Amino acid sequence: MAASKHKNRPSTTEALSVPRGPVDLASYDTNAKPGFDGNKKKGKAALFALGDELSDLQERLFAEGMSGGRRRVLLVLQGMDTSGKGGIVRHSVALVDPQGLHIKSFKAPTKAELRHGFLWRVERELPKPGIIGVFDRSHYEDVLIARARDLVPSAEITKRYREINEFEERLVDDGTVVVKCMLHISAEEQKRRLLARLDDPEKLWKFNPGDVDERRLWPAYQEAYELAIEKTNTEHAPWLVVPSDRKWYRNLAVAAVLGETLRSIDPHWPGPDYDVQEQRRRLLEEEPVGSAPR
Amino acid sequence: MAASKHKNRPSTTEALSVPRGPVDLASYDTNAKPGFDGNKKKGKAALFALGDELSDLQERLFAEGMSGGRRRVLLVLQGMDTSGKGGIVRHSVALVDPQGLHIKSFKAPTKAELRHGFLWRVERELPKPGIIGVFDRSHYEDVLIARARDLVPSAEITKRYREINEFEERLVDDGTVVVKCMLHISAEEQKRRLLARLDDPEKLWKFNPGDVDERRLWPAYQEAYELAIEKTNTEHAPWLVVPSDRKWYRNLAVAAVLGETLRSIDPHWPGPDYDVQEQRRRLLEEEPVGSAPR
Repeated sequence: MAASKHKNRPSTTEALSVPRGPVDLASYDTNAKPGFDGNKKKGKAALFALGDELSDLQERLFAEGMSGGRRRVLLVLQGMDTSGKGGIVRHSVALVDPQGLHIKSFKAPTKAELRHGFLWRVERELPKPGIIGVFDRSHYEDVLIARARDLVPSAEITKRYREINEFEERLVDDGTVVVKCMLHISAEEQKRRLLARLDDPEKLWKFNPGDVDERRLWPAYQEAYELAIEKTNTEHAPWLVVPSDRKWYRNLAVAAVLGETLRSIDPHWPGPDYDVQEQRRRLLEEEPVGSAPR
Repeated sequence: MAASKHKNRPSTTEALSVPRGPVDLASYDTNAKPGFDGNKKKGKAALFALGDELSDLQERLFAEGMSGGRRRVLLVLQGMDTSGKGGIVRHSVALVDPQGLHIKSFKAPTKAELRHGFLWRVERELPKPGIIGVFDRSHYEDVLIARARDLVPSAEITKRYREINEFEERLVDDGTVVVKCMLHISAEEQKRRLLARLDDPEKLWKFNPGDVDERRLWPAYQEAYELAIEKTNTEHAPWLVVPSDRKWYRNLAVAAVLGETLRSIDPHWPGPDYDVQEQRRRLLEEEPVGSAPR
């Protein structure tokens, strides 16, 4: 992913993709660095180096959207507590102009939201043409926490997988590239991060005692992720598993995937829908402006 | 504004503020650099240097908002076409985490919006606690374009000034710091920027032939700004005039004002609403997690 100038660069998206079929998360090393050879220092430099290109590609996509284009991106971030959904927004997504972003963090559904189907609140937050949408948690909570905590019958979960696939297919048909990243950390790494929050006065607000209870359900969550990924790992909206014990790698990997996604969209600067020469003439030949009597 | 380490640093907010009473925009040099001595190179360095502090202050504000605090910021950007409202978001506002931003660009009102009072669509886009809201154009269009183009009777405009003042006072009472910036460019500088858009294939999409027509109303717009600023230059929500012929100064000035605003709010990291020692013990003493039989 550092070799963005090479023609046959290794694709981070490829390196992180999940083969179709049953998923065994334990077989994915949470500490790995697929598609990247370097150390932390080189990784941070590679992330920084991606900034200008990402920013340029995002502006092209935005311009296209302002000029009638339909294309857009939806980046779905899922992962256990502390896996770094917010960190990716802060360090990777933030490389582009915030005017081209629509970031939505989904919390536990409100009473009003619960009166609708589970996709209702998600539909309302989809990115408009030209925009990069980022979901910090998403409709996947409704098959993850719902399954891990046995909130709904298993038959309902099965139905939701299908509804999600149909929903995402509609998005893709309408010009959205759907990028789904599971940020994969180990239970040990989560413990380290939770303890670190308790040690740092600037991070105490991020700690929630409920997170410790939730850890008891770790195996149930891993299983829910494995099933959700298997059932929704479609051709049109495939899953990526991003090893996330190393924060710098996680940030770099998602930025690289975003770059590869935007490059594959290859958005173009819109041409003028007016006569450039005529407009130039109008400006150059106009009466003096701004000096009229007041 | 470069002297953020000095105790008695000159305040950019002070240098840009507008005295109460009638406003003569012609007396404000669009090419000036109030509160800053250096050249472009130093200005860009000073902007970059503000990044870490802005980012830290924004995160504190966000944390406070997540923990029950009511405080927030609303940055209102107004100015003629090409004055740089978008540029400020891209270069200054973008220094902070996009998760803490709510950016809204107001276009000509839709039919649905026109069925409501002019403040209706604005209310819906106000920043929530802990968030920095940024308006690219705003409710001020309803006293600017409305007056310059004679869209509504003068008595209605007068009524709107009062409604705006009452509206903004309510925001301030509810914990919002309202920062209103008029980006002040010369008619000549606007012409240069419009011509530059016609010369650059990457900027053709930003050009709108209507902008050339709008220039004919330049004196009417300046007068509408002068009146709007005079009538809404209140104690609770004062106006700043930002000389904007130099893009680098404009970006630096607004970033500096944002920094001074956040410093004056002085947001604090929230303390824990749980027993830190108890939570640490729970984590350290828990049964092994993640290794349960599957």
